[in-house]
Amino acid sequence: MQYNKHLNTIDITDRGLAYGDGLFETIALINGQLHHWKLHWQRMINGCKKLALNLPDENQLLEQIQQQLNTQNILSNGVIKLILTRGSGGRGYLFPENQDENLIISYHQWPERNIEDYTNGINTIVCKTALAKQPALSGIKHLNRLEQVLARNEFDNEKYQDGVMLSHAEQGSPFVIEGCSSNLFFVLNSKLCTPKIDNCGILGTMRQAIIDFGLENPLFLVQEDNFELQQLEQATEVFFTNSIYGILPVASISYRTKQQLQQWFYNERTIIRSLANQFNTQLQRPFEL
Amino acid sequence: MQYNKHLNTIDITDRGLAYGDGLFETIALINGQLHHWKLHWQRMINGCKKLALNLPDENQLLEQIQQQLNTQNILSNGVIKLILTRGSGGRGYLFPENQDENLIISYHQWPERNIEDYTNGINTIVCKTALAKQPALSGIKHLNRLEQVLARNEFDNEKYQDGVMLSHAEQGSPFVIEGCSSNLFFVLNSKLCTPKIDNCGILGTMRQAIIDFGLENPLFLVQEDNFELQQLEQATEVFFTNSIYGILPVASISYRTKQQLQQWFYNERTIIRSLANQFNTQLQRPFEL
Repeated sequence: MQYNKHLNTIDITDRGLAYGDGLFETIALINGQLHHWKLHWQRMINGCKKLALNLPDENQLLEQIQQQLNTQNILSNGVIKLILTRGSGGRGYLFPENQDENLIISYHQWPERNIEDYTNGINTIVCKTALAKQPALSGIKHLNRLEQVLARNEFDNEKYQDGVMLSHAEQGSPFVIEGCSSNLFFVLNSKLCTPKIDNCGILGTMRQAIIDFGLENPLFLVQEDNFELQQLEQATEVFFTNSIYGILPVASISYRTKQQLQQWFYNERTIIRSLANQFNTQLQRPFEL
Repeated sequence: MQYNKHLNTIDITDRGLAYGDGLFETIALINGQLHHWKLHWQRMINGCKKLALNLPDENQLLEQIQQQLNTQNILSNGVIKLILTRGSGGRGYLFPENQDENLIISYHQWPERNIEDYTNGINTIVCKTALAKQPALSGIKHLNRLEQVLARNEFDNEKYQDGVMLSHAEQGSPFVIEGCSSNLFFVLNSKLCTPKIDNCGILGTMRQAIIDFGLENPLFLVQEDNFELQQLEQATEVFFTNSIYGILPVASISYRTKQQLQQWFYNERTIIRSLANQFNTQLQRPFEL
């Protein structure tokens, strides 16, 4: 395992580039501390299992991150990105005989976000690019992200601040899964709901934190299930979650049918406010939504 | 557009690594000449369209490849690999405002292959990892190849020389699509058949060359359709195609059901021999199969 904390480049033969053969994590750094580390680490464990990658040593990894922060003298907020690849080698798709993973640690500035995204909520549109059903790869944060890239670039950024992604369905109705770079929650019949992530989608760490919170606070108990887009018409509150941005209220969902552009609006903020008070404060993000 | 002919590394912020946001081609180099260049180039055009990448300048690209061959004084056979990425930048999945693609050209040794793979044919097994249905990405040779990586590493390399991949099917029967790194052809009811590549799979250049050949030689007219695995039991000849290995007869297909291991064997070589005579000779691969 190569811990490349000061590396700005990787070899062009790295399988992360060749095949997207690896994982990544983007972790909020708050006052020099990794936020929700245990949840990121657990997802990395699951990802390594699914892709048959060797898991880095947790203590060594944390030490390397700390060294990088010390070297760059970083005490403020930011983002730590980890990329774990299968390294170089192998004959084509075949794993290398001596698999030597490459772990890249990089620091990025804390991304600011318009206060209006939090106070007014964001406007979203349902993307045409759907998520293919692939249970072998669902849930984990692997490096094959072309679906998200295509979906995120479908819409006008002035009008919409994120997209809603559905599952690919040849027959029947697709399910609503997540945002382009976020998970989706909503309140339906007074219940807090989120789409099941079993065939596609990413198990976000903020999503997991809310589910865990709900297990101890029955008012926020989360129901994971398959939901069709139409069920969102009845939702009273809708919000996106993301490890860096926290909780973002959704003000509207738009979608184009053959005939017209439909739009649903959401003004309720009861559950959103409580959760933002819990989680956005930890991320030093706006919480009086 | 950066033409990186002598580059051994790329920046860790390159979107090819971050998201698999790009394309690749592996092209046979025979006596210093690019084999089936026009077919590779056409697939690159299609890939750039699907992913909204800027197409490199064809003449400039060919010139850069030639310069690299001259510098390394290469006159013999080998493989030229091209990787085209969206370059660095962008906010997350969002395309960079000034998209500046990265084109990496690398030379690799000509891979030898056991003569027995050609004379006896290869033994194959049906992989458990299925190909997700994603029309937005099918056909093109993009950098999101985790499905192939997982499938190729499912089986014992001593026993099986390649795998057969099926489409993911929640309901009904899956279709047979391709090999882990090859396309699949077979002779069924005296007709030369190959699976349609519309929902998943890669449109291989050797596959295209055979289809084009069949349009001028009615004996080899190719029927593209959806086929279920069970239809391969009735096939009289089965073969794989690949731009580097040419035509490889399939000697057997194995697959595990819950109850048992089933195996089908293929000894016929009539169509295979004619096509190998046409195409394997061009690649200086065995053709008396």
